[in-house]
Amino acid sequence: MDFRTDMAVERRDLYRKANNIETEIDGVECEEETQEDIRVTRVKISNAQGQEALQKPIGNYITIDVKRINNIEPEKEDKIVEVIAKELISVVDKHIGKQDEIMIVGLGNLYSTPDSLGSRVVNEVEITRHIKIYLPQYIDENTRSISAISPGVLGTTGIETAEMIRGIVDKVKPKMIIAIDSLCSKNVDRINKSIQISDTGIVPGAGVGNARDELSEKSLGIPVIALGVPTVVEMASITNDCLDLFIEDLQKKAESNDVLNKLKDEDNYQKIKDALIPNDYNFIVTPKEIDDLIDSMKDVIARGINEAL
Amino acid sequence: MDFRTDMAVERRDLYRKANNIETEIDGVECEEETQEDIRVTRVKISNAQGQEALQKPIGNYITIDVKRINNIEPEKEDKIVEVIAKELISVVDKHIGKQDEIMIVGLGNLYSTPDSLGSRVVNEVEITRHIKIYLPQYIDENTRSISAISPGVLGTTGIETAEMIRGIVDKVKPKMIIAIDSLCSKNVDRINKSIQISDTGIVPGAGVGNARDELSEKSLGIPVIALGVPTVVEMASITNDCLDLFIEDLQKKAESNDVLNKLKDEDNYQKIKDALIPNDYNFIVTPKEIDDLIDSMKDVIARGINEAL
Amino acid sequence: MDFRTDMAVERRDLYRKANNIETEIDGVECEEETQEDIRVTRVKISNAQGQEALQKPIGNYITIDVKRINNIEPEKEDKIVEVIAKELISVVDKHIGKQDEIMIVGLGNLYSTPDSLGSRVVNEVEITRHIKIYLPQYIDENTRSISAISPGVLGTTGIETAEMIRGIVDKVKPKMIIAIDSLCSKNVDRINKSIQISDTGIVPGAGVGNARDELSEKSLGIPVIALGVPTVVEMASITNDCLDLFIEDLQKKAESNDVLNKLKDEDNYQKIKDALIPNDYNFIVTPKEIDDLIDSMKDVIARGINEAL
Amino acid sequence: MDFRTDMAVERRDLYRKANNIETEIDGVECEEETQEDIRVTRVKISNAQGQEALQKPIGNYITIDVKRINNIEPEKEDKIVEVIAKELISVVDKHIGKQDEIMIVGLGNLYSTPDSLGSRVVNEVEITRHIKIYLPQYIDENTRSISAISPGVLGTTGIETAEMIRGIVDKVKPKMIIAIDSLCSKNVDRINKSIQISDTGIVPGAGVGNARDELSEKSLGIPVIALGVPTVVEMASITNDCLDLFIEDLQKKAESNDVLNKLKDEDNYQKIKDALIPNDYNFIVTPKEIDDLIDSMKDVIARGINEAL
Repeated sequence: MDFRTDMAVERRDLYRKANNIETEIDGVECEEETQEDIRVTRVKISNAQGQEALQKPIGNYITIDVKRINNIEPEKEDKIVEVIAKELISVVDKHIGKQDEIMIVGLGNLYSTPDSLGSRVVNEVEITRHIKIYLPQYIDENTRSISAISPGVLGTTGIETAEMIRGIVDKVKPKMIIAIDSLCSKNVDRINKSIQISDTGIVPGAGVGNARDELSEKSLGIPVIALGVPTVVEMASITNDCLDLFIEDLQKKAESNDVLNKLKDEDNYQKIKDALIPNDYNFIVTPKEIDDLIDSMKDVIARGINEAL
Repeated sequence: MDFRTDMAVERRDLYRKANNIETEIDGVECEEETQEDIRVTRVKISNAQGQEALQKPIGNYITIDVKRINNIEPEKEDKIVEVIAKELISVVDKHIGKQDEIMIVGLGNLYSTPDSLGSRVVNEVEITRHIKIYLPQYIDENTRSISAISPGVLGTTGIETAEMIRGIVDKVKPKMIIAIDSLCSKNVDRINKSIQISDTGIVPGAGVGNARDELSEKSLGIPVIALGVPTVVEMASITNDCLDLFIEDLQKKAESNDVLNKLKDEDNYQKIKDALIPNDYNFIVTPKEIDDLIDSMKDVIARGINEAL
Repeated sequence: MDFRTDMAVERRDLYRKANNIETEIDGVECEEETQEDIRVTRVKISNAQGQEALQKPIGNYITIDVKRINNIEPEKEDKIVEVIAKELISVVDKHIGKQDEIMIVGLGNLYSTPDSLGSRVVNEVEITRHIKIYLPQYIDENTRSISAISPGVLGTTGIETAEMIRGIVDKVKPKMIIAIDSLCSKNVDRINKSIQISDTGIVPGAGVGNARDELSEKSLGIPVIALGVPTVVEMASITNDCLDLFIEDLQKKAESNDVLNKLKDEDNYQKIKDALIPNDYNFIVTPKEIDDLIDSMKDVIARGINEAL
Repeated sequence: MDFRTDMAVERRDLYRKANNIETEIDGVECEEETQEDIRVTRVKISNAQGQEALQKPIGNYITIDVKRINNIEPEKEDKIVEVIAKELISVVDKHIGKQDEIMIVGLGNLYSTPDSLGSRVVNEVEITRHIKIYLPQYIDENTRSISAISPGVLGTTGIETAEMIRGIVDKVKPKMIIAIDSLCSKNVDRINKSIQISDTGIVPGAGVGNARDELSEKSLGIPVIALGVPTVVEMASITNDCLDLFIEDLQKKAESNDVLNKLKDEDNYQKIKDALIPNDYNFIVTPKEIDDLIDSMKDVIARGINEAL
């Protein structure tokens, strides 16, 4: 199964639908909580079956869905910040001590708007490591040491992101990484409206097709919390969903039509992708207001991180 | 007929296909010329029938299609610049004298990447009007007077673009406007690879659905040359094309199916648009490299204008 | 007297010092009020003598001095926003009714960091004019109509800013203009820490030497409120102050030295300026953190305006 | 001696002037070459005395002085690019083989305009390392492997630049580093008009007062070529020069005055600096057109590097 989404919560839905599962998937637990306009969904992949089904490592995946993020009232933004901070700190506290050093890693390409979230959040995060080392008298001694880097992407550095991070981690020796990334969703309605926090690490660029080495406890030796926001949906993915809806509609009207039944069984994704992308461009679907939305989202997430840490 | 493209050359193709016209549309003339990797197509709408068919005013529409615009060799870029300059000056010369003052108008929203081309070109254009007025001794007396403005968009100014331009034109009294804009195409393969030059003015935002007052000789009293580059394709437009292809495929396999024939006759665009866009976002399809592509394109066009004028 | 500052409060101090005035200047009134870290100074030029002395038109000049603007606690920022809003609305209410339309004008050059404040503020201001016209059902009928423009600077448009604004005002017909601009101060300690609000209009670029037509009730027929922030100090201006201090020091040690007394009487500004600026660059003194400071300041001022209106 | 400049060529002049040396400094060699508008000065520090005198490591310092860099004719820009490329490759070839891997390091802070040169150059450099590794079939096998990173500054990452680079070098194992940085000059006329290339490494931020660990062959185990451009002059430095001129003037007029002679011997720099900078801002003198100048310079240097490698 090719999910074309980085969101565990969407994979769970897709898997259940595709396999006609009415109850829960074996090895997957899910609970949902709604406060006002904010819905928090906690998906836990608890064993190898769950991991196999959702093609995501065993661990916790928290999705925070909000109504909107730009032009919202300050109190609603405060509330979202507070939820992000609370969920983030609960994940962090499961793995390291209150004062253990954390390195924030902003993944993605600053110069490509839909992929710039990570670098832009890093620019807003409050850094303390250098103050703790060089000016300890100016800072509370219990303050956690925080550093932050934006390693860039393979296409602009020529170096695998994971390789670069490993080199820096070897020197700085943080106790945890929090990696911020742009994600790919299946659902246009989630773009810039969801935040996924997981404790299983991240594969940079996985959602948009340039997967490289993973960023995880296995590869780095320290826990890696991933905080991602969907900013794009693949065009071929939407078009495929559209066709599915269309074929279902056709089937209702012409039930016995074998051709249609067969088509429904096929995955037309690659066919559509090939048809749509005759050249070397990689097309994405994004809201017209993406620049503005990213701007708002980076503020909210940076505030959430600052509040949590 | 709802074309969902601002390109006259695409409208001509769509109209001919939809109406099974093998020869030329009445009131439309078209000629094509290819030099190396650059194709120049000149569509002329010569009478009311042509205007009615393509839903574009009587006048000339020149499309320059190039292979690529970013990371190209300097000589190829020089060649594209030269073609733009040549086509632009030929249109300008039809309407005004060699020294008549021109105002360059950069349409669109600087803060929305795919819509920022106009403002960014304006920032690169060589301005002479103030030098001719205040420091005439520093400039050749035959230099054409050039001014340039970026009026912004209704959503960020609260003022109709055409109204603002009329106010400025009343004071500055140029003899011609050259308006630079981002366009909407039907064809993903044209994004940032085509330049359309027309002498019939422009309707800001027409292609993406927020049409306002037109910018034309009729409304402003001076000729308006429009220079546009497609930067987006509407998602619903692509999906609809996709469905048409799909239905054609179905029909080949199940010819007598009346349901399918009926569906083919319907326009599913609005249905898909409604399905895809449940909220107030306006989704667009754009290349992942849009920031980079716009950057390259603005240089090429600014150079073309500078060379032409 | 050549003040080299746009701040009325600084001109008053300089004039009194230069003329050894211990009491108040004839035709000038001044009152000061301090709340916590915020000092509000109200200078009123009440007659022609005052106007002559300070070389500023008769009217009110309010200066809000704050301790700092970036990296401050949210509550302190809220307090500054509140003070700006209160002072601004009190000036606005003196001239127009509660629902009279206002046009915000962001002066300066977006592409020159220290001069970009006006344009950047405009980008953050809440616009209502288009909603009141096209979608009145979505907005409270008592909402004031607000539009906003960034006319650019003569060097990039070729058009005088005042001429462009006059053209737009003729069409849009607002009842008042609020013009946002970067100012020049004499005091490095005021850079990005003061806000001057006046009801006498503004001369774009006056402080940095490219004065053009004024923007005032006289020239536009509607009141023009100017809201400015000092972002630069001229290097030659500081150096001159420095020399004055130095000569004073010398004089204390060698009181009878006639040469020194004579030098003190001379204005060395032009000599220093000539010495320092041998080419066509216009050097400025600015904090290293100017980009960051501007970023913070633009948010605060935009919020002040939004809250006021 | 406190030079307040990163330019070896300026230090040589200052040292000779301060010590009344008419011939060459012991341990320093210098030759100058002028082609059209471009002057190339080669300062070689050849022994410990030279190193002691100029407070720069033994090695080669090439300064390329140009007339201007923005709004120049394409041919003149081509000429400057060519000179940079020629000088750079001659230094590179002294240390490594034609195909040895190079890592470009853009020092400085992207978000502070005068300090953003390094990061912005890196964004324009052609990277080949990933293509050589993953897609060797698409690239000439003799192409040199190039990677590029922008490590950021201590203030935004919390990590010393040298520490971060050491970590990455350990993994990537290039044979040489070319570090791009903004420099501090004593001469306003050199801002954005000089390029210094040296083979002795670099101390990030040294010129503006935040020196950290050095970046050199000694600390990294591979040769470090530094390519820097002066983008700032310290205000106190200029003011001090100004005062010196002034005092000289006074002395001419009042030769016997002991007070003045004494003052001339003192270094007023710290006194002026203290007087000018009463708060925590770090003021700099920079051309008003700095954003624009940086934009032009980054293109020229990136092209120089691309052509050289």
